[in-house]
Amino acid sequence: MKLAVPREIWPGEKRVAITPDTVKKYTGLGFEVVIESGAGEHASIADDRYVEAGATIAKTAKAATGDADVILKVRPPMVEGKTNELAAYKKGATVIGLIEPYDRAELIGKMAEAGLTSFAMELVPRISRAQSMDVLSSQSNLAGYRAVIDAAHEFGRIFPMMMTAAGTLAPTRIVVVGAGVAGLQAIATAKRLGAVVSAFDVRPAVKEQVQSLGGTFIEVEDDDAASAETAGGYAREMSDDYKKKQAAKLKEVLAKTDIVITTALIPGRPAPEIVTADMVAGMKNGSIILDLAAERGGNVAGVKPGESTMTENGVKIMGPSNIVSSVAADATAMYAKNLLNFVTLMVDGEKKEMVFNREDQIIAETMLTRDGKMVHPKFGGEADKETEAENG
Amino acid sequence: MKLAVPREIWPGEKRVAITPDTVKKYTGLGFEVVIESGAGEHASIADDRYVEAGATIAKTAKAATGDADVILKVRPPMVEGKTNELAAYKKGATVIGLIEPYDRAELIGKMAEAGLTSFAMELVPRISRAQSMDVLSSQSNLAGYRAVIDAAHEFGRIFPMMMTAAGTLAPTRIVVVGAGVAGLQAIATAKRLGAVVSAFDVRPAVKEQVQSLGGTFIEVEDDDAASAETAGGYAREMSDDYKKKQAAKLKEVLAKTDIVITTALIPGRPAPEIVTADMVAGMKNGSIILDLAAERGGNVAGVKPGESTMTENGVKIMGPSNIVSSVAADATAMYAKNLLNFVTLMVDGEKKEMVFNREDQIIAETMLTRDGKMVHPKFGGEADKETEAENG
Repeated sequence: MKLAVPREIWPGEKRVAITPDTVKKYTGLGFEVVIESGAGEHASIADDRYVEAGATIAKTAKAATGDADVILKVRPPMVEGKTNELAAYKKGATVIGLIEPYDRAELIGKMAEAGLTSFAMELVPRISRAQSMDVLSSQSNLAGYRAVIDAAHEFGRIFPMMMTAAGTLAPTRIVVVGAGVAGLQAIATAKRLGAVVSAFDVRPAVKEQVQSLGGTFIEVEDDDAASAETAGGYAREMSDDYKKKQAAKLKEVLAKTDIVITTALIPGRPAPEIVTADMVAGMKNGSIILDLAAERGGNVAGVKPGESTMTENGVKIMGPSNIVSSVAADATAMYAKNLLNFVTLMVDGEKKEMVFNREDQIIAETMLTRDGKMVHPKFGGEADKETEAENG
Repeated sequence: MKLAVPREIWPGEKRVAITPDTVKKYTGLGFEVVIESGAGEHASIADDRYVEAGATIAKTAKAATGDADVILKVRPPMVEGKTNELAAYKKGATVIGLIEPYDRAELIGKMAEAGLTSFAMELVPRISRAQSMDVLSSQSNLAGYRAVIDAAHEFGRIFPMMMTAAGTLAPTRIVVVGAGVAGLQAIATAKRLGAVVSAFDVRPAVKEQVQSLGGTFIEVEDDDAASAETAGGYAREMSDDYKKKQAAKLKEVLAKTDIVITTALIPGRPAPEIVTADMVAGMKNGSIILDLAAERGGNVAGVKPGESTMTENGVKIMGPSNIVSSVAADATAMYAKNLLNFVTLMVDGEKKEMVFNREDQIIAETMLTRDGKMVHPKFGGEADKETEAENG
């Protein structure tokens, strides 16, 4: 079995799908590992470290991937203009990466046409057996840390309270919107640096987690919130009255806030707008908003993905794209480990071959294409077609 | 009495010498306060906030400072090419700021010629009565914090140890060279963020301070170090043998270090080179060195002030200039408060006038010019001339 890792060619992508550590593990599983020269450059991994770990270096992506059985990617194979990464892969090869399935129907079709077996790592189910393969969690964790570092770097003040002979500097006030993996890590990091942190989430269930990290949970006083809490589940849609109260509460809090970090994402759907133009207009000169959902439409009115903009009232709105590439070495370490655990699941150790058991929930929920066909029920597979027929 | 604050015109300078808070205090002391429009812009202080506090806004620096009795500056008045800030000031006016006296003999002469009374805030003695005016401490403190934020922002990994389902990320290893005010704040900030921190200083007296912040003190095993410690004072010059051992020890430590922050400054003299090219060459790919002494010659071989450079072995050497301007709002708050305390010392509250009592150690040690003459014994004053004669 041959496993290949090409250099990532998406602009700004600094991660790579393999580390010297995981090279050794793949070799142990029976793989011959080939890596394109320079693949680890931006993650501070030089070619010779891969060689020491037992890999071979190929000069080009084609030379690396041409006869590979398994190809590990970070970003989706690029098929754009004159670039076609798929063209190098052999029929029957397995491609694993962050395929962005919700946005790439065309690519999924092309991978099926090319006879590739493909897997989207963002579809790994959130079950405990799959925790070690959960790329969204591992990368969100780093994104949450990095959002705080980037905001601190942009902010014209320091985070901790400082009492000196010349007077006291007040601590920075930070609000985190959305207390998922990224949000919780942002809360923890901002607290570490000495900020006063509050968090907002529509799910009352996360209140305790926020508090255990030293954050204050921003509560909306409304009967609807109470009923959502007794129901015990996620609050997906609140009443209009609740939404009005939420907006009023958030506006009041944000007027006294120095830094806002938003992290609210809904898989496969645009991010919800939570911080409105009206709220931004009420914030102080010199404040920072960092929107981790910018690439998915943004939680903040007026955010531009990949850019920082300044409002008339002096609030900087940052819409970072691919923020984890800023901590490429660690993001790579985690991602490569997630991939290794995922691939291990599909290797038959005796026969030294890949086995795709679609009875396994993890494999079933991540597989996009197989034997020339789209197979995922949500992305062009049979069930998807039925659903479309139903909806149409 | 009229007190004026012009906009700072040094490239990259974002601080300003007055805040709305201190405007009120100056008014209380009997000053009429005039501020040039836009002076606080980069410190997130809009003109109207100064006006609310009781100041008047002038359209130009000349209009603000032309008839002022006291002029507050951050950086030295610029006299360069067609720019001459001094030209606007009236004879007999008092100018207070960071005058950089060790580097600006010519400027000091010109201020004397112009009949200005001038004070260099960096010369405030480190006595307890002057703590609230100690600009070097207040700004170094912020520089130490900011050095860590800037290094974290540049570094391709996260600081804290992270144990996840996909494995453990090791904490970042940081070495701080020079455990003065900036160094201690850098240690504290890096510890806060979860890094493993060691510190090096030639003064054994700071060992306890380093340890109390959770840092490890890097010790050089040598009889000379022991004798320096029993002497109880600062170790100014160590034996050649000690220096060799120090270099060997530091090289060994830096090879395992991810981030180095250097802060070793000697007032009025070039910064000592502590991190040699040989030590840099032994560091890991992806490591960061941030040299807070870059503007004074640098503690690190090959550092370029105001630039970031990459070595052949993938070590980034950052030589930030004016790092506190990155936290301009807080740096301004502290600096303005330091200035207020200094000016207060010289205001006769009854007569509503400035009084310069040269019997006062603080005033004597900071005053550069008075009545058309250079008066500081180290900077062109009488004692200085005597010293020159002796040395010559």
